[in-house]
Formats: sequence, C-alpha cells, structure tokens
Amino acid sequence: MGFEPYRSPSTGRPVRAVLFDTFGTVVDWRTGVAREVAAFATAHGHTLDAHAFADHWRALYQPAMEAIRSGTRGFVTLDTLHRENLDQALRQHGVEPDRLDTAALEELNTSWHRLPAWPDSVEGLASIRRHYVVGPLSNGNTSLLLDMARNAGLPWDVIIGSDMTRTYKPLPHAYLRTAGFLDLEPGEVMLAAAHNSDLRAAREAGLATAFIARPTEHGPGQTADLAPEGDWDLVASSITELADRLGA
Amino acid sequence: MGFEPYRSPSTGRPVRAVLFDTFGTVVDWRTGVAREVAAFATAHGHTLDAHAFADHWRALYQPAMEAIRSGTRGFVTLDTLHRENLDQALRQHGVEPDRLDTAALEELNTSWHRLPAWPDSVEGLASIRRHYVVGPLSNGNTSLLLDMARNAGLPWDVIIGSDMTRTYKPLPHAYLRTAGFLDLEPGEVMLAAAHNSDLRAAREAGLATAFIARPTEHGPGQTADLAPEGDWDLVASSITELADRLGA
Repeated sequence: MGFEPYRSPSTGRPVRAVLFDTFGTVVDWRTGVAREVAAFATAHGHTLDAHAFADHWRALYQPAMEAIRSGTRGFVTLDTLHRENLDQALRQHGVEPDRLDTAALEELNTSWHRLPAWPDSVEGLASIRRHYVVGPLSNGNTSLLLDMARNAGLPWDVIIGSDMTRTYKPLPHAYLRTAGFLDLEPGEVMLAAAHNSDLRAAREAGLATAFIARPTEHGPGQTADLAPEGDWDLVASSITELADRLGA
Repeated sequence: MGFEPYRSPSTGRPVRAVLFDTFGTVVDWRTGVAREVAAFATAHGHTLDAHAFADHWRALYQPAMEAIRSGTRGFVTLDTLHRENLDQALRQHGVEPDRLDTAALEELNTSWHRLPAWPDSVEGLASIRRHYVVGPLSNGNTSLLLDMARNAGLPWDVIIGSDMTRTYKPLPHAYLRTAGFLDLEPGEVMLAAAHNSDLRAAREAGLATAFIARPTEHGPGQTADLAPEGDWDLVASSITELADRLGA
C-alpha cells in the first residue's frame, strides 16, 4: 500500500512539501541568543540582561526587513540586518559597539546560526521527511540556515534561503518563489509556523497551513500566538504531533 | 583535538565545502536513463537501443545549454532542455514524439530525477559530510537534484540548483554564485568532478579541485576523462577514496 499524503481542505491538493518557519517554530532563538549574549558580556566585562537583550535585538527584526519589503532599500541578507541591529541593541543597552572588537561582534552576530532546536524538532522533521519533502521557509539567508541545520541536526531535504527568493516574508513572492524552486503548485506546499501572521500570508499565497504552538518562544510572559487565530488546516503542539496529523 | 580541514595548495585556503558535479560523478546517468528508456519502449511497442538512446539524449545536453550560456536564449531549467532534447532524440531514432502520450513523455523526462548513485557515493558523501559541507554543484535544477537526492539517498547538506544561480557551468558565475550563497570564498569551496573541463573552469574561478575517475560513465568504450589532465588538488577513484584524502 502506498502512502496517502495529507490533502489540504483549503487548497484541495495533496501536500508534497512541508516547509517550516524556523525562528521560534523549529529553534528557540531567545534561549540561544541569550546564552551567547551572556557569554559575550562576561568576556568583555559588561553587565547585560541577556534575555532582555535578545528580545530587543529580535524586536528590530521586522522594522529592518520592512525597509526592504517596501522597496526603500535593496535586498540585503538577514546576517547583514542582524549585524546592524546588534549595534543598535548594544547602544540601547549602554554599550558602544565601536569600542568593541569587530571579530567578537561578528561572532556574536552568528549566534543566530547556532540556535538550539526545540526538543521535538529533530524527531518530528525526521518523521515527516519519510513521506514529504522538508525544508525551511524562513527569512534567514542560506548560509545561516545551513549552519543552523548542521549545528542543531535538522534533517532538511533542501534549504531555500531568502537570498534565493530575494524577498522577505510575509510578501507573497517569498512563498511563491519557494514553491517554484520545488516545482510544486503553492497548494502542494504546507507552511508550518508558530505565528498566525505568517500563516495568514501563506494562505493568501495559496499554501496549505499548519499552526504549531510555541507558547514560550518569547519567554514566560508571552501573550501573542498562544493559539491559532484562523481555521488553519492543521494545529499541533509540536512537530512530532504535526507528523502524526500528516500520517507520517 | 579539533579536525584540521584539508588545505588546498592551489587556493591556499582550508576547504569548508566539497561540492560535486552530479551527472557522471555522483550518479550513473547512462544506466539509469537506459533502464527507463527500455521500459518506455517496451510499454509503447517501440524498438530502441536504450544505451545508444541515452547517449544521444545526453549528447544534446551541451549544445542546448550553450544557447543560454551565450545569451542567445534566456534561462530555462535543465528539465525544460531535457524535454526538448527528448523529442529530438526520439526523432533521431525514428519515433515521432507528437504521436506519443504527453504524460508518458513527461514521466520519461524525469528519469534524470531517478538516477542511481555509483556504489561508493552515499558512503563517501556521508563520510565527507562529517567534516565539510556537502552539496551538488550541477547544471540540474533544484527540483531535479532534490528528487535525485531523495531517490538515491544522497545526504546533501544543501542543494543549490542552476535555477538559483541562473547560469550553467562552465561559466564562472555558476561556481562563484554558489560559493556566495554559502558565504564562502571561492578558495574555500572544492569542486569534485569526473570531468577535466569542469575542473578547469572551477580552478579558473578560484575553487579547489578534486578529480574522481569514472571510467565507465559513457559505457565500456569510454575514451575521455579516464585520467586527470591537470594538477588538480586531489585525485581519487571513488568518493570514499576522496573522503580519505580529505581526512574525513
């Protein structure tokens, strides 16, 4: 008996590829970045609230991409945006980046390449991969996503970075060009994400959708994205549970 | 003790990624295509010399890409070129493609997605992957290379198809844009290939080089590429032997 792939009620198509938002959905950016920020602060004799610093650094992410999405700035990679935002976050915390060692700042900037997976991610992806193509659908650039995969052991089939689509989610081309590289119809691709806004844009672009709850992505006080806010095709509390829902 | 990556004498840099030509170097296209051509001919009541057909189909590969490399034609994927060349090869063999079922021709065209690996490929790639990034550096498009990897069990870290660099080897951008997506200097990337012309172009672009002998790629009467024709950094008779040379 052949495997029957999950058929999305919203797209009417069998799902061939399950692609994942990464930051927050597959990996725990807050814990990973805070850990490296704490080590950096100790090494350089600064006092920093590492979790607050990670939150501030991350908060600059959407505004930085917005300049590119709106067309007021040409495409640059997320590594470049993270590096600019790092300087800004340091200044917010009373540290002048120009007085710090450039190589050390570069190293801290690549903390986004070394984020730890959530406990269920590797097992869940390996299960899904048995029957579906798995890959990231992230605003990360290819080299960031590749390092992340090697460090965390994420068993992707393929990595299509935002430097390949040359655009940032939630613009429709981010989803559509990714499906195009896979030679799939949008409705044959499922986005799995912990963020309702990402899923809204994916559905708008014609993709199948799965919500994965990550209620501590932003720490113990998280208020957003605690539950699905749309009738997404699937809802799960982990990637292993998503694998079950997909019959994988 | 950390692993010491191989340092290329020609580039003077440690190698971080080992990228592979695929058709002929990692997979046995002639056997794989001939097998599907034979099955196709039987199913449709034609008499075809399956190996000769595979050779003719493959012989149309370089001229078809040349139109794109020279700029007389805009970029189209290798799947598209293979499909056009299939019609031409069928006519060479006295079969009129317009009288055949389109879906069956499409299916035969994707025989290039289902090529068998050489016996040493999977084990050799898995060894190299422990210490280096591994991926294809092929004229295949992403979906072709992804299907090939899933079918043959090729353990790539990353797949950068020619539809991502939007050019074809041996043009320099094919090598340079691939290194760029990996955020590596050209000299930190090694091309491993069974074809001296590919290695010449890779070296010209600044990459490290490894020759892998595949003396039966073109069948028992092969006359070209039986031996290295340049002072390539490494020479091996299999990918497992290359892994040894790389210390992996």
